[in-house]
Amino acid sequence: MDIASLVGLIGTFAMIGGAMVVGGGLAPFLDIPSVLIVIGGTFFAAMYTTPIGTFFASFGAMAKAFMPPVKKKNVLIERMVELAGVARKDGMMALEGQEVPDKFFEKGMQLLVDGADETKLVQQLKAEIKSMKSRHEMNQNVIKAWVDLAPAMGMIGTLIGLVLMLGNMSDPQAIGPAMAVALLTTMYGAIVANVIFAPMLSKLEGYTAYEVVYREMIVLGLRSIARGESPRNIQDQMVSNLPPKMQAKIEAA
Amino acid sequence: MDIASLVGLIGTFAMIGGAMVVGGGLAPFLDIPSVLIVIGGTFFAAMYTTPIGTFFASFGAMAKAFMPPVKKKNVLIERMVELAGVARKDGMMALEGQEVPDKFFEKGMQLLVDGADETKLVQQLKAEIKSMKSRHEMNQNVIKAWVDLAPAMGMIGTLIGLVLMLGNMSDPQAIGPAMAVALLTTMYGAIVANVIFAPMLSKLEGYTAYEVVYREMIVLGLRSIARGESPRNIQDQMVSNLPPKMQAKIEAA
Amino acid sequence: MDIASLVGLIGTFAMIGGAMVVGGGLAPFLDIPSVLIVIGGTFFAAMYTTPIGTFFASFGAMAKAFMPPVKKKNVLIERMVELAGVARKDGMMALEGQEVPDKFFEKGMQLLVDGADETKLVQQLKAEIKSMKSRHEMNQNVIKAWVDLAPAMGMIGTLIGLVLMLGNMSDPQAIGPAMAVALLTTMYGAIVANVIFAPMLSKLEGYTAYEVVYREMIVLGLRSIARGESPRNIQDQMVSNLPPKMQAKIEAA
Amino acid sequence: MDIASLVGLIGTFAMIGGAMVVGGGLAPFLDIPSVLIVIGGTFFAAMYTTPIGTFFASFGAMAKAFMPPVKKKNVLIERMVELAGVARKDGMMALEGQEVPDKFFEKGMQLLVDGADETKLVQQLKAEIKSMKSRHEMNQNVIKAWVDLAPAMGMIGTLIGLVLMLGNMSDPQAIGPAMAVALLTTMYGAIVANVIFAPMLSKLEGYTAYEVVYREMIVLGLRSIARGESPRNIQDQMVSNLPPKMQAKIEAA
Amino acid sequence: MDIASLVGLIGTFAMIGGAMVVGGGLAPFLDIPSVLIVIGGTFFAAMYTTPIGTFFASFGAMAKAFMPPVKKKNVLIERMVELAGVARKDGMMALEGQEVPDKFFEKGMQLLVDGADETKLVQQLKAEIKSMKSRHEMNQNVIKAWVDLAPAMGMIGTLIGLVLMLGNMSDPQAIGPAMAVALLTTMYGAIVANVIFAPMLSKLEGYTAYEVVYREMIVLGLRSIARGESPRNIQDQMVSNLPPKMQAKIEAA
Repeated sequence: MDIASLVGLIGTFAMIGGAMVVGGGLAPFLDIPSVLIVIGGTFFAAMYTTPIGTFFASFGAMAKAFMPPVKKKNVLIERMVELAGVARKDGMMALEGQEVPDKFFEKGMQLLVDGADETKLVQQLKAEIKSMKSRHEMNQNVIKAWVDLAPAMGMIGTLIGLVLMLGNMSDPQAIGPAMAVALLTTMYGAIVANVIFAPMLSKLEGYTAYEVVYREMIVLGLRSIARGESPRNIQDQMVSNLPPKMQAKIEAA
Repeated sequence: MDIASLVGLIGTFAMIGGAMVVGGGLAPFLDIPSVLIVIGGTFFAAMYTTPIGTFFASFGAMAKAFMPPVKKKNVLIERMVELAGVARKDGMMALEGQEVPDKFFEKGMQLLVDGADETKLVQQLKAEIKSMKSRHEMNQNVIKAWVDLAPAMGMIGTLIGLVLMLGNMSDPQAIGPAMAVALLTTMYGAIVANVIFAPMLSKLEGYTAYEVVYREMIVLGLRSIARGESPRNIQDQMVSNLPPKMQAKIEAA
Repeated sequence: MDIASLVGLIGTFAMIGGAMVVGGGLAPFLDIPSVLIVIGGTFFAAMYTTPIGTFFASFGAMAKAFMPPVKKKNVLIERMVELAGVARKDGMMALEGQEVPDKFFEKGMQLLVDGADETKLVQQLKAEIKSMKSRHEMNQNVIKAWVDLAPAMGMIGTLIGLVLMLGNMSDPQAIGPAMAVALLTTMYGAIVANVIFAPMLSKLEGYTAYEVVYREMIVLGLRSIARGESPRNIQDQMVSNLPPKMQAKIEAA
Repeated sequence: MDIASLVGLIGTFAMIGGAMVVGGGLAPFLDIPSVLIVIGGTFFAAMYTTPIGTFFASFGAMAKAFMPPVKKKNVLIERMVELAGVARKDGMMALEGQEVPDKFFEKGMQLLVDGADETKLVQQLKAEIKSMKSRHEMNQNVIKAWVDLAPAMGMIGTLIGLVLMLGNMSDPQAIGPAMAVALLTTMYGAIVANVIFAPMLSKLEGYTAYEVVYREMIVLGLRSIARGESPRNIQDQMVSNLPPKMQAKIEAA
Repeated sequence: MDIASLVGLIGTFAMIGGAMVVGGGLAPFLDIPSVLIVIGGTFFAAMYTTPIGTFFASFGAMAKAFMPPVKKKNVLIERMVELAGVARKDGMMALEGQEVPDKFFEKGMQLLVDGADETKLVQQLKAEIKSMKSRHEMNQNVIKAWVDLAPAMGMIGTLIGLVLMLGNMSDPQAIGPAMAVALLTTMYGAIVANVIFAPMLSKLEGYTAYEVVYREMIVLGLRSIARGESPRNIQDQMVSNLPPKMQAKIEAA
């Protein structure tokens, strides 16, 4: 569970909800038709932006903002160095069936076992990374559609409310409340875009960037094994991707 | 038919229309001069952004957002692997007249049959892809013009309405309705940009990206055939472009 | 004459003017000091963004949005293929004085006649293209300044109007008309930016992109002639830059 | 202590606070619930954008905007040239234990002492630089989240205030003050984004750019030492990264 | 003196001032506290964005928008061709002490005299150009900070004014003038950003681009001299960077 996503999302809503409650309760801020036009309208407009399969797949991607992968770079380096020792001593075949902390790692190792040379190994793994990036980007584009379209739907809702209010001003007492309701869709649009989806998008882009670096470290390690470099050398190269403190810890080990 | 485009567009209009009906019917939201200035004005301004041929061609491109190509990457890989086997066994000439699931594929295969070497093959096919991308981009630029210009025309329309209203405030009763009408063009502009064209642009950009990947897979496959690589090797390389689940399915086959 | 620019610009103004006339005539929308601050202010601010020579040259570039070049890619390919045949049969010297449909083409051909090798030819022609692109970009930057600055001048004008109006509210009857006038500069700014210059900028960027592709095709053709490739081969490479339909037409010829 | 950050931040607040005091004291500008929704809401929403570790680490990065590194490029060049002399005379081993003005420099020098060749040296140091850049970027993305989200939270707060005010207009006297309070969150959002975090982000991006150039100069120097170039030559190359005046000073030395 | 900057800036202010005078004199548009918060606030906030040295250096850069360099490309080409002749006839040593129209040119020539080969020459000169670009960019970033921050300070000032006004509406007569004053900071922010600094930024970016091309032409010329190319050849290559008309003039000479 990604604690920052959970606490962050709940905390933001607590702040907003608190301001509402302090001001007079949640009731004035709830209006079902306004919810429908913003949430429903953005839902359908976001669906329109993308193929239907990608649209539904994007909800799974959203969930990942709360359940992050927990792959540690130092564990990866440790294991890679061990396997480099194995491969040097007993040959590539000895890598068969070794446990590794990641499916992508496993696939690359299997390529080595199957006798792939450095060029083929790197080419295929890079193609996988590129393909992963474009898959993630597709999902993130749907989330970006929510961020872009929700404020627009909010504004459209407010304009509808204003037009209705302005066309019917016989009762001066009703003007204030009518305008209050008209503003709700703009508020919903701002909340949906800025509180729910924009931070989610940042989080997922961050995860993708992390995963790309993680996988590039795997490619770096495996290609070095394919070249028959020393475990020490492989560790030196891989740790360059870590912050100074973690480098020191690994090198001390 | 692209179900997401259709359902998405209709659904968004249903949400907006529903909010209007609930509030008091569609009548207050219809104003012919307002429609003319937003739709007509954006139509002509978008025409000005581009050569006349491109402008009219862009309507055909818009229709494609509702009728997507249905090219499957796994079908492509399967066929490419079969043809690699044919070429290896019987030579390039045996590719003559083979059925392939795509015109671009056919053209590339014909180049092989005509004796093109790897360099010429890749050079020509890459030029085709680049040319396709820039053709699509030209059409998408027109759609982008609709997205950018419609809100501007809406704002100009609203300013015209406000100026007229402010210049003639003798009848206080007329102010509300006059302002309501003035706001309609802003609403139309927001709807045209965000409900109709912005999602359409995203969809078409997504299709273009898909088509580019699809064609790059064809280039990858054909150049491997030109090099005389084994069908197994070609499949390994091409499947790297698929998501893990589809890879597993193909490799199991 | 670029028909799309002319019809587009006139059509947009017709829509806007029509909305004004329907609402009560053009008179309320004309205010000379407002015109001065928006048009004059943007004129001088745009002048400030660039050297004086570039500023005045940009008006010539603006005119080009209405008088596009009419260079056909298929005519270019046809002529290039003929000249490739001539060069193959009679040597580079035979290219001397041949008619070609473009000055850039002529210059490149002259380089061949003068004995330039492929490297020198490509280097010089690429430098010319780069230089053309940066010259066009300089002009387009001035137009971009109009697009960016006109709404700002409009807003400044409106603020001036509002400050004057708010400082002098003794006559309630005058408030409406005063505010109407204040809004005119915002409207002028929006029209100048979105109706006149933004589409012009898109059109000119499109022309530049077209010209770059056209010239790159010339470089491709001439370098192939320098290498002594067959006319057939040159045609194959050059047509890859055309849409499928035009390719078929040329290949059928 | 970065004097510009300190004076800049305090000076800006002095200007804003001065305008408040001149207008009637600070009291009307303080509202605790408004502070909570803007600061608290942005705090939690920014937390949501990133892993929890990065979120807390970003506060340390913020502090760096006030405590800049003080690494001088001319000191670096001087020391590098001395060490190049040492290495030329006594071999790489003589670099062992030499004092250098930077940890990254030390690490690179140790690589030379350990017998790394030019390729390995450059590869590892470039990986370190890339890793540093992406670490800094992660921290700066959190700051960017404050810049982007604070105005949004301010707007949401203002909408909440407006809805409450509009729903309860029985007391005309209360409308003004209620609206004043509603506007405070927009003001807080603008201050948090533009006065505190946007300049901080620029400052940190500038520091990162400086550090990257500084480290690239170290890589340039060390690789030249690895190649055995003359101290004079190394100085010539490194000073090219300095402004003309500092070049003259060093060359005169 | 850059006539376009001077006339442009004065002309824009004349338009704005004219509109004020026509509307009722400059007095209603002057408010010292409003000037302080916008100019002072932006001054300090811009200071915060950058190291103190860069901040003060940026004022010198601003002045350059009014005193442009006057380096002519055709003069450069002429002189380079002469020097190429000298170097060809009498050797590199003969370049010693030759007059050249630019310090960067002089430095490069000195490198040739000192016996630098093509690689070293190009490497050092390119490093100088890169370093100049990043120095200019640093200065321009400060100007960009003025452009970005001035409207924000204007908005903060207006919000302060509105809060004060809304909190104290007992005197209805005072509301108009109070609001007028509140709007002044927004107007100042728009003027500072769009009339003074945004065009200045464009101008300086244009000068930097020009200087980069000018220096790249010098590198091109000097490396050709280092290679011993013929003066004719060097001229041919360098003129490709000029517009067609200037090319014709030089070639006719």
